Amino acid sequence: MYKKRKLGRGVAMVGAGMSSFDMFSDKDSKDLFAEAFVELNTSVDKGLDPADIDALYLGNFTNDFFVRQSHWGAILSDSLGLVPKPATRTEGACASSALAFREGVFAIASGFYDVVLVGGVEDMSKRSTEEVAEGLALAASPYERKAGLTFPGVFAAIATAYFEKYGASREHLMNVTIKSHANAPLNPKAQFNLAIRDMMDAKVKRAKSQGRAVPDWIDEKDFLRDARANPPIAWPMHLFDCCPISDGAACILLVAEEIANRFTDDPLHVVGLGQGSGRALHSADDLTYFEATRHAAKEAYDMSGLTPEDVQFAEVHDCFSIAEILHIEDLGFFKPGEGHKAVEEGLTRLDGPMPVNTSGGLKCKGHPVGATGAAQLIEVWEQLRDKAGRRGVPKSDLRIGAAHNLGGTGGTCTFTILERR
Amino acid sequence: MYKKRKLGRGVAMVGAGMSSFDMFSDKDSKDLFAEAFVELNTSVDKGLDPADIDALYLGNFTNDFFVRQSHWGAILSDSLGLVPKPATRTEGACASSALAFREGVFAIASGFYDVVLVGGVEDMSKRSTEEVAEGLALAASPYERKAGLTFPGVFAAIATAYFEKYGASREHLMNVTIKSHANAPLNPKAQFNLAIRDMMDAKVKRAKSQGRAVPDWIDEKDFLRDARANPPIAWPMHLFDCCPISDGAACILLVAEEIANRFTDDPLHVVGLGQGSGRALHSADDLTYFEATRHAAKEAYDMSGLTPEDVQFAEVHDCFSIAEILHIEDLGFFKPGEGHKAVEEGLTRLDGPMPVNTSGGLKCKGHPVGATGAAQLIEVWEQLRDKAGRRGVPKSDLRIGAAHNLGGTGGTCTFTILERR
Repeated sequence: MYKKRKLGRGVAMVGAGMSSFDMFSDKDSKDLFAEAFVELNTSVDKGLDPADIDALYLGNFTNDFFVRQSHWGAILSDSLGLVPKPATRTEGACASSALAFREGVFAIASGFYDVVLVGGVEDMSKRSTEEVAEGLALAASPYERKAGLTFPGVFAAIATAYFEKYGASREHLMNVTIKSHANAPLNPKAQFNLAIRDMMDAKVKRAKSQGRAVPDWIDEKDFLRDARANPPIAWPMHLFDCCPISDGAACILLVAEEIANRFTDDPLHVVGLGQGSGRALHSADDLTYFEATRHAAKEAYDMSGLTPEDVQFAEVHDCFSIAEILHIEDLGFFKPGEGHKAVEEGLTRLDGPMPVNTSGGLKCKGHPVGATGAAQLIEVWEQLRDKAGRRGVPKSDLRIGAAHNLGGTGGTCTFTILERR
Repeated sequence: MYKKRKLGRGVAMVGAGMSSFDMFSDKDSKDLFAEAFVELNTSVDKGLDPADIDALYLGNFTNDFFVRQSHWGAILSDSLGLVPKPATRTEGACASSALAFREGVFAIASGFYDVVLVGGVEDMSKRSTEEVAEGLALAASPYERKAGLTFPGVFAAIATAYFEKYGASREHLMNVTIKSHANAPLNPKAQFNLAIRDMMDAKVKRAKSQGRAVPDWIDEKDFLRDARANPPIAWPMHLFDCCPISDGAACILLVAEEIANRFTDDPLHVVGLGQGSGRALHSADDLTYFEATRHAAKEAYDMSGLTPEDVQFAEVHDCFSIAEILHIEDLGFFKPGEGHKAVEEGLTRLDGPMPVNTSGGLKCKGHPVGATGAAQLIEVWEQLRDKAGRRGVPKSDLRIGAAHNLGGTGGTCTFTILERR
């Protein structure tokens, strides 16, 4: 009985805030979420009385593992002074806070609440890299883990399947990385904020000053091809194909459309909402697309009445460079097998026809997993609300942006379309 | 801007299923949830085509910790054949699946979905008792844990505060335990299914057959006072004041009221829905009530237009015997300080005016934490739908029942009222 998806009551986004993303030895989840919430408060044009917040939805992947503490909905409700308002944690691996956003939308659209705070947090860097890899692997399927796969291995398998099917190569992955690093210096909250060219120059300068042999890199791909500068992790995934370990928080204020003007005269409207689940890789028909992303896209386009051509820019889940290529195909921005060519041709650059990951993406902005889904939507907010500064998409009629969030090895995907009217 | 809570679209419960609750060395979360889902399928009067399920909401506390696997929404979507339908995990410690129920209600009430499967699972027994205690402590507040408290200690502190304020004693806690054990033999899925009297008789018989000294217990309280039979855990909490370690799963089918008749002519209606959050104990005004429970109750009564007097029986979160006493006060069934007297007078017995925990409660039915909230609502379903057999509440006009679920040390509470019309 599939029916067209719609909401009985419209929902608008009227505020947003995020912490810087980085590895912080001196900040925990409470600190990071407070930082995001303080910024959110200043972002609401007509001001927010926190007493008006009806409920909190919090995405978190596994602080259970990373910091041996669960039940973060209640902890943050307490630390933000929201008690006794309800607080609910959602988890869908790296898509955890996109799920929080979605539940916030449903809670308002249902008529039950009017003003809901949604967001996410993750505190990963207090453990060793080996332990973080073990923690992240909790999100892979039990079958994948039994096969000995951790995340770089999973996406390496996906990449080689894509190469085989469509004749792509590592050179195409490099184009994704170079683009992400080109956008990141324009984002003051990004964890890595150097373009590849800047990194090359710095390394050459250091080699010279230390009297060492100077690398003979000509262009950025020379740098990425150099296994000393960009060592292999799980072939064809090299270091610069992989997002980092990050701590961070992000939050968003959602309200019923009918009361949005109490908060701002310039709300963003939630016009498309989609989510899907996916099978473990061993039973997938084909490794070169994500069934969950396609279902999420179908739901969101269906609800919005929009097509991929209507979306003017997007944040897309680039946990690994190959993931960005698959997703821009699955979301309909480019045809299957054409994504790697689109990136090569510069179509997804900030000044291209379809900018992707203007924030620098997970690769450079950082990927505190539970915060990522909300942070992607905040990039859409900053772009549509003309707050993106030097990384603003150079289109005169910017009106519709979208965010795509993936959890695990494709077990959970969301796609959300926002519109400024 | 507090307003009366209401849903824009009614939601009905039309099916339910649960696994047995126990410690299973040979069943994992997939097995347990499948067992529950198979029973759910047989419970839908006019049948269910699983293809009609739009989405899954799954409560799980921390299989992350217990079995080193997260992302259970996606895993169960796959194992149940629901892919690519969306699957979302909710977590609120021991209230995790009451949150799943609530999000399922919102998803339907929002107009987005029509048919949603909600439920919960927990697989706790694969680890040692010490590790389970450590895992459960993830749900306490960071402050409580730093003070060295695990759950029996927290509820011991609550009990002594209650004793001090209202002049109650351990003898009153025993009345709760005796009642739970009286109901449990009538529940074929309960983990412990012996009344205290039966246990006494069995122990006396064994002592005689082994030629050992025969205990001189006269009544059930003699047994519970005997530290060999009922050793202290954290005074005044003894073994029989504490719920067990359990594995289990429970699931419920929710549909839009307007299509309920496709599934049954006898749906239950979700008439009251409430949730609250609470502070850590160190900053609570008073240990003898739960602020989160009171907020949840207020929301649910407010939405339903009902009062505590209208609720004819309830499942109440008795992780420890003292918790049941506090909750029946916080929910308005009895006045503050009167709960322990009400239990003593038999008012909460199966044949009393306000039966509480007819299932045997968490104490005897078992407490697989992520499954408990859904399982409580299933007890309400079985009672209202005349499926409770010998433990059926002996009232001729049974129409309204409720379930209360608590997470952590009161960080998350829910209260849900169901009505048969």
